[in-house]
Amino acid sequence: MKIGLAQINTTVGDFDGNRRKILEAYKALCARGAELIVYPELAVCGYPPRDLLFKSSFVPDSQAALHAIAKAVDTTPAVVGCVIPHSGEHGRPFANAAAWCEKGEVRHIARKCLLPNYDVFDEARYFEPATEPTVLSYKGKQIGVTICEDLWTDSTVPTHRLYAHDPLKQLDVAAPDLILNLSASPWNLGKETIRQTVIAAAARRFGCPVVYCNLIGGNDELIFDGRSCVVSSDGRLYGALPSFVEAHAVFDLAPSSMVEAAKAPLDDLDALHAALVLGLRDYAHKSGFTQALLGLSGGVDSALTAVIAAEALGSENVTGVSLPSVISSQHSRDDAAALAQNLGIIYKTLPIQSTVAAALSALKPLFQNRPEDVTEENIQARVRGTLLMALSNKFRSLLLTTGNKSELAVGYCTLYGDMCGGLAVLSDLPKTLVYALARHLNQVHAPRCLIPVNTIDKPPSAELRPNQRDEDTLPPYEVLDEILRRYIEQGESTREIIKATGFAEALVRDIVRKVDLNEYKRKQAAPGLRVTSVAFGVGRRIPIVQRYIC
Amino acid sequence: MKIGLAQINTTVGDFDGNRRKILEAYKALCARGAELIVYPELAVCGYPPRDLLFKSSFVPDSQAALHAIAKAVDTTPAVVGCVIPHSGEHGRPFANAAAWCEKGEVRHIARKCLLPNYDVFDEARYFEPATEPTVLSYKGKQIGVTICEDLWTDSTVPTHRLYAHDPLKQLDVAAPDLILNLSASPWNLGKETIRQTVIAAAARRFGCPVVYCNLIGGNDELIFDGRSCVVSSDGRLYGALPSFVEAHAVFDLAPSSMVEAAKAPLDDLDALHAALVLGLRDYAHKSGFTQALLGLSGGVDSALTAVIAAEALGSENVTGVSLPSVISSQHSRDDAAALAQNLGIIYKTLPIQSTVAAALSALKPLFQNRPEDVTEENIQARVRGTLLMALSNKFRSLLLTTGNKSELAVGYCTLYGDMCGGLAVLSDLPKTLVYALARHLNQVHAPRCLIPVNTIDKPPSAELRPNQRDEDTLPPYEVLDEILRRYIEQGESTREIIKATGFAEALVRDIVRKVDLNEYKRKQAAPGLRVTSVAFGVGRRIPIVQRYIC
Repeated sequence: MKIGLAQINTTVGDFDGNRRKILEAYKALCARGAELIVYPELAVCGYPPRDLLFKSSFVPDSQAALHAIAKAVDTTPAVVGCVIPHSGEHGRPFANAAAWCEKGEVRHIARKCLLPNYDVFDEARYFEPATEPTVLSYKGKQIGVTICEDLWTDSTVPTHRLYAHDPLKQLDVAAPDLILNLSASPWNLGKETIRQTVIAAAARRFGCPVVYCNLIGGNDELIFDGRSCVVSSDGRLYGALPSFVEAHAVFDLAPSSMVEAAKAPLDDLDALHAALVLGLRDYAHKSGFTQALLGLSGGVDSALTAVIAAEALGSENVTGVSLPSVISSQHSRDDAAALAQNLGIIYKTLPIQSTVAAALSALKPLFQNRPEDVTEENIQARVRGTLLMALSNKFRSLLLTTGNKSELAVGYCTLYGDMCGGLAVLSDLPKTLVYALARHLNQVHAPRCLIPVNTIDKPPSAELRPNQRDEDTLPPYEVLDEILRRYIEQGESTREIIKATGFAEALVRDIVRKVDLNEYKRKQAAPGLRVTSVAFGVGRRIPIVQRYIC
Repeated sequence: MKIGLAQINTTVGDFDGNRRKILEAYKALCARGAELIVYPELAVCGYPPRDLLFKSSFVPDSQAALHAIAKAVDTTPAVVGCVIPHSGEHGRPFANAAAWCEKGEVRHIARKCLLPNYDVFDEARYFEPATEPTVLSYKGKQIGVTICEDLWTDSTVPTHRLYAHDPLKQLDVAAPDLILNLSASPWNLGKETIRQTVIAAAARRFGCPVVYCNLIGGNDELIFDGRSCVVSSDGRLYGALPSFVEAHAVFDLAPSSMVEAAKAPLDDLDALHAALVLGLRDYAHKSGFTQALLGLSGGVDSALTAVIAAEALGSENVTGVSLPSVISSQHSRDDAAALAQNLGIIYKTLPIQSTVAAALSALKPLFQNRPEDVTEENIQARVRGTLLMALSNKFRSLLLTTGNKSELAVGYCTLYGDMCGGLAVLSDLPKTLVYALARHLNQVHAPRCLIPVNTIDKPPSAELRPNQRDEDTLPPYEVLDEILRRYIEQGESTREIIKATGFAEALVRDIVRKVDLNEYKRKQAAPGLRVTSVAFGVGRRIPIVQRYIC
């Protein structure tokens, strides 16, 4: 059988746009001989719709879009992810479903069995699960229709323990000839390997091919990588679609036609790069921005953000602004200017001295001769934020905030200052990863230089005090990032971190304390692109007022 | 039987503090003859612990605190809300439980059956539900032990439909003599009436008393009102504890000893007032702030916020700052000064002209002679934010942001400007409710005047343009708030709102569009005290990038 995979980039709530994409893919794949066409999870309404589902007209409008799609479907069935009302007497109001559309109508509905309600997922808030997966007959084949999490029951996946039943066990009885999986599986570093293991395990378990269609595109914090694929009955990866781009393809399931694909077409840093470019582009374009601006400090975070922005939006649509103060070093300005020139982005200079001086002068009578402290540093950062936001407002340009995960973790950043912006491009990249990606991109583009060597080689500094260096306040980033990874991503306690790393107890306690105390800053942080297994944002929900520091 | 109710104010993650409160209440209630003592839900760890539960040491530390509590419990049993590990092969990692402590040990564990996973609740993220409620024998009585949602299965409560089974139906079999309910039931306007209906219905259904112990205190956005009570077998309310304060009491369940209590001891505005004072006080004190400051514009929002702050923290701990611009009217300054004097709070003046002028001058070369627009208004608001944050930093004083729900809904507020602050005291009060509460408090305190009459009577204005009035941009607040209530709290569509209200279609569409487009501002808003059934915050989860505007 020839299966068409429609790896499309949907937008949440854009019923017209999503319907058009679904039908364009349908036509293209039919023309290429597809006998069955598969789409991502919730393709009709986009993923994740969150509480838009509770708007009284949202699900009816989604239903109407589904029926318009079905009407345009001919004899080649299209299996489309959609939300439907749950009609039972009890239970959540909706179901996450796959609609089998054929000959102008919705012929069958298959509902999702396992609803992820951990990490970034809140599906138990909306959906009622099916008690067993749906098996359909088509062209003499038994086809098991599963949705995303339904397949994630392999014992190597820790979350499989959350569920009392295993839809794959239930499928055993039907002895399917083919399993479809409609997914909206967000990408993070390392995800592809786990995902391939899961899909391959399912294929081997049933001795039948698995056809996996995953969403691509950025939706708020989440980046979906696509990388839809067909896995043969012996667990080998055939016919994978590319990562991080829209794509359609037809795969013939006849064993003779199958050609093995590369397991991981991108290495980690290339995938990370592609993810950030896609995440930024979709955040901007899907919310109607063509232009972006950012402050260029001469440091590595803003440099890397500018590289990604230039690639995502076109260098002619990106403005880098140098905002020098009396403290800023000449090399910072030079490095910022060189970067802008390397990238071909627009470059502006906007000195902050006079505004900072005016603010300090206004405050002087109220400060009662108190000694200088972090207040004065914050004023500089906040004046920069105010000036950048003024440019953003005046030119309708999306302000990008450039902070990394390490500083956001310990609060080494100023709320309403350098934290200003509509999107935090690097807020899930530990500083060491920012450096690694910056070096990698310079290497990829060599001999052309993207990021000035000095930007990468000089010791990092916020330049909010004369001769300030990050290491005056923080441990070396290799140490800091190791503590943060264990604490935030692994959930290890202070005691466990000390035991595993041998770092000094006082140091570990201090870092952990800083992470906990700065939850209030992160509450008001811009949304950030998620690239690790635990980002700050919807997948990590810590109270602000709490006293558990451990 | 004499039942002790310990309506305590716990802090999330404060195992030592919570244990002390639990044991102090235990001693006091034993001394007053209690034969059984009941505590709120999750009293040991505080509510809601959210993802702190996933820290590897949190639940073990909570268990240790529980055992320390049990050790101190004598022959009078204490029924304490706690989190325990879920030991089953499958399921979520924890259970939300009630520990029956007696004679130095935990004798029984009763687990929660119904886990709310809607609105502000995420319990399915953490807890595995029990399949049936626990019934225990004590002093010859059958006692059903339920936790919060377990009782909310009355057909008048819309959420009862979410659950396939009804723990109360299961309790029928045991024919209990008494039902305990340990709750952490957050308050909002109108909640008390619904809650009393639910408790009374349960009591009548079993023909036995219900003992209901609810948490009090503010925890981030949520305000718990306590108002623990005993309801007799005929559904009448006996022995209610006061709302919004910590309290202990012993109630004798012998019918002869029972005295009927007032159904709603506070009217809506008094309850709202008490809730805001408690919410602000706990937010500040539980996060270590004794002092707060806020900008005083002469308008009603900042005036009401100041009244609440003065009451919550003591007027000597509150600083009101007037930040006049060239546009500010003399009456604004006079009204701000009069308010500060009325309240006895510290009052400062901090002019913004020179800082605004410096910022505009710095921006001039980059603005390319573009006409003035909202940018210049935002600069004023952001300079105010920067200056207020400088005072907050310098004096370690919590900055309160004063915006109301109406303006936050339609984005009539400046991100990083008047939205700056650690807590948004009024962000869930529609403007009409701000006025109602302001008038009410003035009336309560008459003849002493709290809020200057002019502040309440003058037409509201942001004073960011000469002669600006809110009504230049927005419909009258009575109209705006009606649209917002239907859209946000009721989830009605534009079509339904137009039909129900008769408001002009263009107006309703414009307001709804504004609400949807400003999700990005609310993403970065300060946490706000929740007082309606749907506040902006954890209970309302709308994607930022989305195209469904309906």
